[in-house]
Amino acid sequence: MSDSDEEYLPSASNSITIRLEIQNQPGMLADVTSVIGKAGGNIGAIDIVRPGEDSLVRDVTINTRSDEHADAIVKDVHEIEGVTVVNVSDRTFLLHLGGKLEVKSKTPLRTRDQLSMAYTPGVARVCEAIEDEPEDAHRLTMKGNTVAVVSDGTAVLGLGDIGPDAAIPVMEGKAQLLKEFADVNGVPVCLQTDDVDKIVGTVAQFAPVFGAVNLEDIAAPRCFEVEGRLKERLDIPVFHDDQHGTAVVAVAALLNALEIVDKSLEELNVVMAGIGAAGYAVTEMLLEMGVEEVVGVDSTGPVTTDRDRLNAAKKRYVAMTNPDVDGETLSDVMEDADVFIGLSAPDVITVADLKRMADEPIVFAMANPRPEIMPEKAYPHVAVMATGRSDYPNQINNVLCFPGLFKGVLSCRATDITDEMKIAAAQAIADTIDPRSLTPDYVVPSVFDQTVVEQVAAAVEETAIEQGLARRRT
Amino acid sequence: MSDSDEEYLPSASNSITIRLEIQNQPGMLADVTSVIGKAGGNIGAIDIVRPGEDSLVRDVTINTRSDEHADAIVKDVHEIEGVTVVNVSDRTFLLHLGGKLEVKSKTPLRTRDQLSMAYTPGVARVCEAIEDEPEDAHRLTMKGNTVAVVSDGTAVLGLGDIGPDAAIPVMEGKAQLLKEFADVNGVPVCLQTDDVDKIVGTVAQFAPVFGAVNLEDIAAPRCFEVEGRLKERLDIPVFHDDQHGTAVVAVAALLNALEIVDKSLEELNVVMAGIGAAGYAVTEMLLEMGVEEVVGVDSTGPVTTDRDRLNAAKKRYVAMTNPDVDGETLSDVMEDADVFIGLSAPDVITVADLKRMADEPIVFAMANPRPEIMPEKAYPHVAVMATGRSDYPNQINNVLCFPGLFKGVLSCRATDITDEMKIAAAQAIADTIDPRSLTPDYVVPSVFDQTVVEQVAAAVEETAIEQGLARRRT
Repeated sequence: MSDSDEEYLPSASNSITIRLEIQNQPGMLADVTSVIGKAGGNIGAIDIVRPGEDSLVRDVTINTRSDEHADAIVKDVHEIEGVTVVNVSDRTFLLHLGGKLEVKSKTPLRTRDQLSMAYTPGVARVCEAIEDEPEDAHRLTMKGNTVAVVSDGTAVLGLGDIGPDAAIPVMEGKAQLLKEFADVNGVPVCLQTDDVDKIVGTVAQFAPVFGAVNLEDIAAPRCFEVEGRLKERLDIPVFHDDQHGTAVVAVAALLNALEIVDKSLEELNVVMAGIGAAGYAVTEMLLEMGVEEVVGVDSTGPVTTDRDRLNAAKKRYVAMTNPDVDGETLSDVMEDADVFIGLSAPDVITVADLKRMADEPIVFAMANPRPEIMPEKAYPHVAVMATGRSDYPNQINNVLCFPGLFKGVLSCRATDITDEMKIAAAQAIADTIDPRSLTPDYVVPSVFDQTVVEQVAAAVEETAIEQGLARRRT
Repeated sequence: MSDSDEEYLPSASNSITIRLEIQNQPGMLADVTSVIGKAGGNIGAIDIVRPGEDSLVRDVTINTRSDEHADAIVKDVHEIEGVTVVNVSDRTFLLHLGGKLEVKSKTPLRTRDQLSMAYTPGVARVCEAIEDEPEDAHRLTMKGNTVAVVSDGTAVLGLGDIGPDAAIPVMEGKAQLLKEFADVNGVPVCLQTDDVDKIVGTVAQFAPVFGAVNLEDIAAPRCFEVEGRLKERLDIPVFHDDQHGTAVVAVAALLNALEIVDKSLEELNVVMAGIGAAGYAVTEMLLEMGVEEVVGVDSTGPVTTDRDRLNAAKKRYVAMTNPDVDGETLSDVMEDADVFIGLSAPDVITVADLKRMADEPIVFAMANPRPEIMPEKAYPHVAVMATGRSDYPNQINNVLCFPGLFKGVLSCRATDITDEMKIAAAQAIADTIDPRSLTPDYVVPSVFDQTVVEQVAAAVEETAIEQGLARRRT
């Protein structure tokens, strides 16, 4: 078990069910639970499967920290005399068997009448109506409530370029979230290409069935061009969630954090560590909202005009941020910063860096799974701390944004997602926490707060209508 | 109301609900039902909505023959004194509101544990497993049970080139049938292009999420090249339903019809009228199964080598059928034919043509909605008659084939759909009718016969395994 392993609590994401045949002797089950407990496993449930001859077959479900931890627990159980391990199943894999989505008919097709309305000959009249008025596809087909969740599998979670097949489970998960949180249909689309022209062409060609496109886990800098070209080419909203979803939620958290430290956007010095897709988008959104001082830092150090070999995206980045920054390292630019936003790598800042910051510093350390600085270390030195993790307060999680955002744009048939709509979404997320409830540990609402989706959807829809981008007014 | 209109019975596919405010006077409702009956409408249901002051508001649901017929009925009802038409709704359009499909999560996401298994962080382990072994995508994602239903909207039903938006309701209907009949997921994909290269490229690029591709309503001759190239490029089955689905069901019907007239495939003279996608595929399948004499006829007449300006597909057609046929018209080649198969246009053959045929002729007049000859005229002169219509016996309907076929190829992870698998499917459909039950009016099973899907799936799977094309053996 590695060191970093021990930082995580046992969780359902690494849970196993061990089927055991346990001899009928007093104290046997207690032996089993004690061995598991000693090995650091959390027992979730113990079920009886069937009685054997002189034994009882039981399923023991255990939360573990990792695959290695699970193996170690099984090995320990295996060594108990009188206990046979019948089999071990991984609950996460069991849940994935057969996929996590199904495409269901909303109407039964059990009689001739039902068939003749949903399919031929009745369907022909609906087709003709849409041919006459293509806009009616939003009303008379799934288009009106369906988002394509599109990835090329090149930047999946923290796993990198794992390819389109291996990306499917994540896109299915995204579609599940759309349905369960916002009652919006998501269709996973994983593309067997990482060529910008082909991605753009493919998405544009299959677009008719969809009311919006969510781009997901496409590597930078390709993602910028893909999104830009698709936005131009399609009359439905296109949204790269890794960029803008992260930006919206980070900004929402920042808006509430600023209430706590009583600072305004205009006066902030912001250090942005990590200038991939998300870091770029967070920076753009902050500047759009009135922040004036942002210094971007990548693995080489501050991104300035002096640097050789900046790619096109980083050149654009320098052009919009502070090019003539004083300092050659991340630590240098932390001096007097009000806000540190990390979307970079584990442990890139230290307590000494935090001490260099301005009074009441705000630190969003969102590298996943291990943040730029562990919260335990940071807490004594910061005013507000947030991470991307669910096991600390203030989780900056995209799921606070995209379900409501898509619900909003679909319900008004918006043609685009604009900066204004993203800002409205961020403000709506921030506003779900009553100002009187704001504390340093509660600047971001829970992902299970059901008011978030409705408020984000309403704010986005209202903004779309104000901007004249809604094809339907509700 | 047109003449052809009167050939159809009022049906649910053209049903309306009229909301009426009816004065409280004796006999008023009887007046309404009598006016509707006289106008030829079939009343399906009468519901009370609410009482008014001196009136009662009722919904009257009426099956009509067509839009024009529905308008005429409403006009007649409108003229009844004491009755106000509050509104009229078209039940087929009501059923289509919001689309006919939804993408549902198979697992709830209401707790942190559920989220951590279906989405991050747990999902990452499943992604890594698929990266290691891409074949596992069939097992651990929706791929294993999901078909892309792909159209470019160029040959939709009898409506022609209505475009991708207007084609969506048909593709949704197809996906509904896949789910309701075979528990297979179908995802409608309507393409904003009719360029062969772009169709092939787009389908190939989005293929990773799908276990099979159903091509649908793509115009000939483009459909041949699209299917051929995709079959070559992809390692999942590709099936153009308009071609092969029709062929499989027509052949199934023919196999049973031959039992009735006691003839064998080898001895048949077949006239094939209509050499579009379906006619071409029926011919290929018949030849594959041992038929030796097929004469193809298009709107110009028999397709022979003498003809000028044959396109590439028709040149291939002539090369495989009887090029040196004697006769210049459809009527000429009907002489001594054992079987007429029509996939062409209304009323292209006459009773005189039927009389020219061999003893006990078999006539499959599948032009839709009006067949090559109306059954009432044909019955006295034929041994077995089938059409594509649901209001006559022996409906040759693709839904007898594709749900079971896809269920079969998906369950064994077949890499292709071969001629042998199509023949197995045809035989399985034919065999669902017990030989002792066969009659001239019952050579094709009902679309609601639930044994068909299971038997087709089993036959297709068995054949795939025999041919070494199954990646999984169950």
